[in-house]
Amino acid sequence: ERDKYENNDVAGVVTGLAWTSVGGDILFIESILSKGKGAMSITGNLGTVMKESATIALQYIKANADELGIDAEIFDKYNVHIHVPEGATPKDGPSAGITMLTSLVSLFTQRKVKKSLAMTGEITLRGKVLPVGGIKEKILAAKRARIKEIILCEDNRKDIEEIKESYLKGLTFHYVKEMSEVVAIAVTNQKVKKAKKL
Amino acid sequence: ERDKYENNDVAGVVTGLAWTSVGGDILFIESILSKGKGAMSITGNLGTVMKESATIALQYIKANADELGIDAEIFDKYNVHIHVPEGATPKDGPSAGITMLTSLVSLFTQRKVKKSLAMTGEITLRGKVLPVGGIKEKILAAKRARIKEIILCEDNRKDIEEIKESYLKGLTFHYVKEMSEVVAIAVTNQKVKKAKKL
Amino acid sequence: ERDKYENNDVAGVVTGLAWTSVGGDILFIESILSKGKGAMSITGNLGTVMKESATIALQYIKANADELGIDAEIFDKYNVHIHVPEGATPKDGPSAGITMLTSLVSLFTQRKVKKSLAMTGEITLRGKVLPVGGIKEKILAAKRARIKEIILCEDNRKDIEEIKESYLKGLTFHYVKEMSEVVAIAVTNQKVKKAKKL
Amino acid sequence: ERDKYENNDVAGVVTGLAWTSVGGDILFIESILSKGKGAMSITGNLGTVMKESATIALQYIKANADELGIDAEIFDKYNVHIHVPEGATPKDGPSAGITMLTSLVSLFTQRKVKKSLAMTGEITLRGKVLPVGGIKEKILAAKRARIKEIILCEDNRKDIEEIKESYLKGLTFHYVKEMSEVVAIAVTNQKVKKAKKL
Amino acid sequence: ERDKYENNDVAGVVTGLAWTSVGGDILFIESILSKGKGAMSITGNLGTVMKESATIALQYIKANADELGIDAEIFDKYNVHIHVPEGATPKDGPSAGITMLTSLVSLFTQRKVKKSLAMTGEITLRGKVLPVGGIKEKILAAKRARIKEIILCEDNRKDIEEIKESYLKGLTFHYVKEMSEVVAIAVTNQKVKKAKKL
Amino acid sequence: ERDKYENNDVAGVVTGLAWTSVGGDILFIESILSKGKGAMSITGNLGTVMKESATIALQYIKANADELGIDAEIFDKYNVHIHVPEGATPKDGPSAGITMLTSLVSLFTQRKVKKSLAMTGEITLRGKVLPVGGIKEKILAAKRARIKEIILCEDNRKDIEEIKESYLKGLTFHYVKEMSEVVAIAVTNQKVKKAKKL
Ligand SMILES: [Ca+2]
Ligand SMILES: [Ca+2]
Ligand SMILES: [Ca+2]
Ligand SMILES: [Ca+2]
Ligand SMILES: [Ca+2]
Ligand SMILES: [Ca+2]
Ligand SMILES: [Ca+2]
Ligand SMILES: [Ca+2]
Ligand SMILES: [Ca+2]
Ligand SMILES: [Ca+2]
Ligand SMILES: [Ca+2]
Ligand SMILES: [Ca+2]
Repeated sequence: ERDKYENNDVAGVVTGLAWTSVGGDILFIESILSKGKGAMSITGNLGTVMKESATIALQYIKANADELGIDAEIFDKYNVHIHVPEGATPKDGPSAGITMLTSLVSLFTQRKVKKSLAMTGEITLRGKVLPVGGIKEKILAAKRARIKEIILCEDNRKDIEEIKESYLKGLTFHYVKEMSEVVAIAVTNQKVKKAKKL
Repeated sequence: ERDKYENNDVAGVVTGLAWTSVGGDILFIESILSKGKGAMSITGNLGTVMKESATIALQYIKANADELGIDAEIFDKYNVHIHVPEGATPKDGPSAGITMLTSLVSLFTQRKVKKSLAMTGEITLRGKVLPVGGIKEKILAAKRARIKEIILCEDNRKDIEEIKESYLKGLTFHYVKEMSEVVAIAVTNQKVKKAKKL
Repeated sequence: ERDKYENNDVAGVVTGLAWTSVGGDILFIESILSKGKGAMSITGNLGTVMKESATIALQYIKANADELGIDAEIFDKYNVHIHVPEGATPKDGPSAGITMLTSLVSLFTQRKVKKSLAMTGEITLRGKVLPVGGIKEKILAAKRARIKEIILCEDNRKDIEEIKESYLKGLTFHYVKEMSEVVAIAVTNQKVKKAKKL
Repeated sequence: ERDKYENNDVAGVVTGLAWTSVGGDILFIESILSKGKGAMSITGNLGTVMKESATIALQYIKANADELGIDAEIFDKYNVHIHVPEGATPKDGPSAGITMLTSLVSLFTQRKVKKSLAMTGEITLRGKVLPVGGIKEKILAAKRARIKEIILCEDNRKDIEEIKESYLKGLTFHYVKEMSEVVAIAVTNQKVKKAKKL
Repeated sequence: ERDKYENNDVAGVVTGLAWTSVGGDILFIESILSKGKGAMSITGNLGTVMKESATIALQYIKANADELGIDAEIFDKYNVHIHVPEGATPKDGPSAGITMLTSLVSLFTQRKVKKSLAMTGEITLRGKVLPVGGIKEKILAAKRARIKEIILCEDNRKDIEEIKESYLKGLTFHYVKEMSEVVAIAVTNQKVKKAKKL
Repeated sequence: ERDKYENNDVAGVVTGLAWTSVGGDILFIESILSKGKGAMSITGNLGTVMKESATIALQYIKANADELGIDAEIFDKYNVHIHVPEGATPKDGPSAGITMLTSLVSLFTQRKVKKSLAMTGEITLRGKVLPVGGIKEKILAAKRARIKEIILCEDNRKDIEEIKESYLKGLTFHYVKEMSEVVAIAVTNQKVKKAKKL
């Protein structure tokens, strides 16, 4: 099952951490471009708040395209589709925000996402990362999935400090305040295989 | 009743496997092109998740048109309609994903689908096939319908291994990880009768 | 009351058979063209599945326009409106499919529908007619309405064979598998009065 | 209060008969044109079936514009708005069909509607008038409102014959089968005051 | 608090009378123009019937632009937004009709609304004003708010006659039948400050 | 946590005061521009009334662009997106009106919002600020967040006067009647860092 999280050949695939009524879990955010006029669509049995996260991520990227090294003309020439497997599971909440941000930046730059990395955190329009809940359950799920590095909001540092140290062995944490830090950590400078020329 | 599943003269008709409260069943995915501007519509008394599968299939095909041997200009010149008989039965869930993918690839290439073949599996945007539930019930339904070959996700192999061997007699299983494998197995190189020139 | 079902002067008016909680009944499908850009609208207090039947019928006709002798340019120059009286009665289900198909083919060809004919059957995109329920009740209603001929799916033949023969006296049955057979039986070669030049 | 029903100076104002849980009542259908591109809107706290009646009336008029003496170019140059006072009362059902038809024909021809006339009946796309319920209550309401003439479906004649004769004194009934008969009776040849040149 | 109702410097601000479960109240209708293509939007936590009143008012004004001294070209060059403070209170019903009519006429003519005036009455497309409920409670609220003149439907005169005379002291009533009378009473010939040149 | 409210480097970020079932809280309104055609979108798990506040603010700004020093052409060349963190908390009500107004004026002028300032008040189309509820709880929340200045409606002055004076120490209150006063107090003349040239 390991290769699931180690393959970063495809742009836009990022590992997130979810917290459900039955415990923590990992999830994937996938995104894809097709020729179009700038429409965004989203699937994956998602609730309103999670769909809003995708909108926020895209709006932030559009407004900060220069800083992110993205040619703003792309937005008018392609449609974006975001999907969150697995369709049978309803999903909601803002905590996939930084995961969606990372997915879209990887997609628009066609750059690889770092391997063995997972993340959870809410995004804002002003570029701040906000803390989220269920940290302990999410960390246990990340370990089960052999994740090596995790990005969290600085305000979630206290939740990690409450976890027994043995559980954290083998995990590296990146605490961030700004969305730009997430991108710097998660999106490599290496183009994906068969990168599209956008 | 046999000829129902053996006729592959029409592009876009593919046999799937469904699991309902009253047991397993086979179902058909049908798709059709008409001149238009790239709209997709879908009927068949379907729930949200099953409709999402059609969107994911189409987005995946658009983004991977070259690899699939499809001229991307088709997408702007035709509308696609997908239907899942029988209208009186509500249907939902992600498990018809690979069936919809196969239907659309057959439609856009006007190539025949393999005879006596059925399939069940969730699709993703990144090209992976995901496992689904109700495998035992679906297999029994496939046998009753005289299906000969079945495509499943590799992660569903364990569900087949738990089924009494006598039940599996006469069935060939294809276990796949990638959506490209589904297309390679299910869509033949032979054009359908009266193939449209797209 | 007899003339209700014997008048075929107007294109697009076809007699169907319905099965409700209070027994069988006949119903009419009416359709009409007005100048436009290819929109379809539908009224008659219909549920989702019955509305879907109209979509399927139109999509099938568009994709098979040549075989049906319809100039495909019509679809872009006219709007179609379909109505199912009586508005006070909610109606649903797929069984009016072949009736809607017949209505639209009569409309687009401006050819008369056969007199004293009624029908019931689900349609598919691939051109197959599927069986429907409530056959006994529908047949009794057809007799009360002095219908002479009835089109049914071949798979509904067994339901007729279970009905006492005296009830069937005076009725001729046409059992079909393909939607093209329905059109061949139901739509005459004679133009309606005041046929529109499309 | 009498002048309410005797004023026919404005195009598109027609008196209908309604049947509610508290008995019969009269109601008005009003319609108005404004420059536009053929949109129809409708207000008056109406249910789905009553809104559908307006659609059916408009579609019928568009398809039969020639026979009704209406220049089909009007439909593309004006928007139509239909309103049914009084907004505080929810209204539904198909029985205002012929009233809406009369309103729109008066509007598009700018011809006066006959004075002291009320009507109730369902419409179809093929030009037939269908019977409706609550006839006795509607007739009593018409008398209270000093209506002189009433248009009903021929199939409602039996409902009138069951009403005590003394109640019908002073009322003239027009029984119709075709929608063209309604227009012939209800819409005069006289233009309204300040008739618009369409 | 007095100046609330005496300021008529801004076009489109009109005082209405509302009747809620906790008694009568005054409310304001505000409207505003911005460059656009003729769209109307509306806010204020309003129910369907109250939103319909705005549509009726606008349609009536469009159809009677000449009589109202409004250049019909305005409707295509501006968007209209109507708001009814206070957002925390849900509002519904047809009784703000004449208040909305007055607001829009003031807006499109940029003429001042009469000071210390309030009104309540339903509107129709044919130009009639209809009576509304809760008159006693509305009058008491108007007095508390130091309103001096009130416009009501002629059919509401009887409701005023049932109110103890001492309550009516200081109030002048205008009873109207036609919407044109409302405009004549409520909209002055004086342009508002900083009137827009439309 | 202090820097949260003291950073005003980004246009469109304004601190509001909210009152929920668990007491008072501060919230942020964020807004952002991207190239487009004048669409407004909004996220943050908001109810209808709160979304309406954003519409009112934008309509007011469009109609008063000159007075606010905004070039009206901006509205057609950019899309606006407004977000209210935190997505997990449902939010509603009109009290963020002046906060949204301030956010949009800062955004369209690219001018800094005053530091350590919070606000709460309903807006109208005619430029008036209306009082809101929960003042005591909101003030306590503002103090906890080290806010220094607060803008309130003049009609909320009485609510402040009922609060124990010691609670108010260190807070400066601005009581306003007009929306123009809010802008004058809250939006500085200084451009934000990296101000966009609109
Ligand atoms: Ca999982
Ligand atoms: Ca996550
Ligand atoms: Ca079946
Ligand atoms: Ca399947
Ligand atoms: Ca019937
Ligand atoms: Ca039928
Ligand atoms: Ca009445
Ligand atoms: Ca009626
Ligand atoms: Ca109030
Ligand atoms: Ca009012
Ligand atoms: Ca908070
Ligand atoms: Ca606030």
